[in-house]
Amino acid sequence: MTHESRCIAVFDSGLGGLTVVHALRRRLPAEDLVYFGDTARVPYGTKSPETVLRFAREDCDFLLRFNPKLLVVACNTASAAALPELESSVPVPIVGVVKPGAAAAARRAGGRRIAVIATEATVNSNAYKRAIRELGCDAPVVQRACPLFVPCVEEGRDASDAIVQALAREYLQPLIPLAPAVMILGCTHYPLLRDAIAAVMGPKVALVDSGEETARGVEELLRQQALLARAETVGSLTCYVSDNPQRLREVGQRFLCEPIRDVTCVSPEEFHAGESAHV
Amino acid sequence: MTHESRCIAVFDSGLGGLTVVHALRRRLPAEDLVYFGDTARVPYGTKSPETVLRFAREDCDFLLRFNPKLLVVACNTASAAALPELESSVPVPIVGVVKPGAAAAARRAGGRRIAVIATEATVNSNAYKRAIRELGCDAPVVQRACPLFVPCVEEGRDASDAIVQALAREYLQPLIPLAPAVMILGCTHYPLLRDAIAAVMGPKVALVDSGEETARGVEELLRQQALLARAETVGSLTCYVSDNPQRLREVGQRFLCEPIRDVTCVSPEEFHAGESAHV
Repeated sequence: MTHESRCIAVFDSGLGGLTVVHALRRRLPAEDLVYFGDTARVPYGTKSPETVLRFAREDCDFLLRFNPKLLVVACNTASAAALPELESSVPVPIVGVVKPGAAAAARRAGGRRIAVIATEATVNSNAYKRAIRELGCDAPVVQRACPLFVPCVEEGRDASDAIVQALAREYLQPLIPLAPAVMILGCTHYPLLRDAIAAVMGPKVALVDSGEETARGVEELLRQQALLARAETVGSLTCYVSDNPQRLREVGQRFLCEPIRDVTCVSPEEFHAGESAHV
Repeated sequence: MTHESRCIAVFDSGLGGLTVVHALRRRLPAEDLVYFGDTARVPYGTKSPETVLRFAREDCDFLLRFNPKLLVVACNTASAAALPELESSVPVPIVGVVKPGAAAAARRAGGRRIAVIATEATVNSNAYKRAIRELGCDAPVVQRACPLFVPCVEEGRDASDAIVQALAREYLQPLIPLAPAVMILGCTHYPLLRDAIAAVMGPKVALVDSGEETARGVEELLRQQALLARAETVGSLTCYVSDNPQRLREVGQRFLCEPIRDVTCVSPEEFHAGESAHV
């Protein structure tokens, strides 16, 4: 029973992971959530695997101070670059967004082609392709990096924006002749551009939201391990960022679909103090 | 005579500062240059003044290890957020890109309106407006943030790209009715999009490249202080980055207009060792 009341800790390179928090809140309204967005060093998607791993380790170290029952890597780039290493070093269960997204895509594709759209770093890592293969699925996989989608969303653009629609055509039209059955939205920002992506790909391509699938996976795991919070409680959401708390309040609301009240900016000293705390 | 042979050290949040290095190399071919691009934490333009100041201090500390005769802040965001503080703490002359750009614009505007395009952080700082006023120029100043220009350039797009041209229209057309006489390209990435900007603003608006003006200012300062390198030498260029040296080699070439050979990736330990070294 003691386990149930501990929080779920979630981190992302910035604000995109709030789409995963949104899915978790809907599915698991009783859970207390602690979110960390590394807004001082965002984005991760254009950086090297070594740097992303280093940042992800520091993010985990910070969140372990909240004694979570589960850690969620709500960032595709960090899941792709760092999850195996984190799994072996973090003393609580840890869930990334790549495997749940890959599993849902493999299920729905039934051997037909799977397209993955993601950041440069996620595409270069081949993490989705590897995860699909590890599930014993040998469907053809095609990948496409869409580098400007993240800054578009961060600037406040949505699927109705003309620039976003032009970019969606540029990035995605070359995939149409390959006739994928499923497309993985392999970046937590992309669900906010879902309608623009769907407009290019057409109704025959099933879009898989890795964040949504991750929330489903988290629910299953907590149920299996008898770690769910008491159903009658109402879960809290506490947010930390490494820079610009005001921006999280303003822009983050669009990701989360609810107002964000409790945001704290972590100073570098506090942030790095976390590292030594759990060593 | 000993002073002359020391290097000029230049830093930027990432690759954009290489446009300033390009201008310095053309103007001062005999000077040895050391460049640092903070590619692990790029961009600075969406971050808070406090965070930009902290990063800029660390960048300076790293470069001071090379015993430079002069430091150049080849980043508008860092110049806007950090220059006054750096001037009082760095033991060598330090030049930013804001004042030289502001001075050139004030000269050319002759009291007519000046437009400034820059990152969100630079616009929010009002640094250009303040610099223009400090020169005793009371020309009207209008500012516009163009957040997607930087990721466009980083993705490899140039002025001939359809997305860049659409963005230029969206960002800049609202400025046309204000009839500015001069427009400051207040971000080191923007000179690479010059033709797209000029196409929207028309031939009557003079475009001021802050990087070019900074190189002119550096030359003047070195001449006044008798710090120029011997004219018969050929200057070297040594580059350091905090992440992704390969990307600097590939993308940086477009900024520098010459191949980049000598690039070293600085580990976090080496980078932070620099801090204590000069304390």
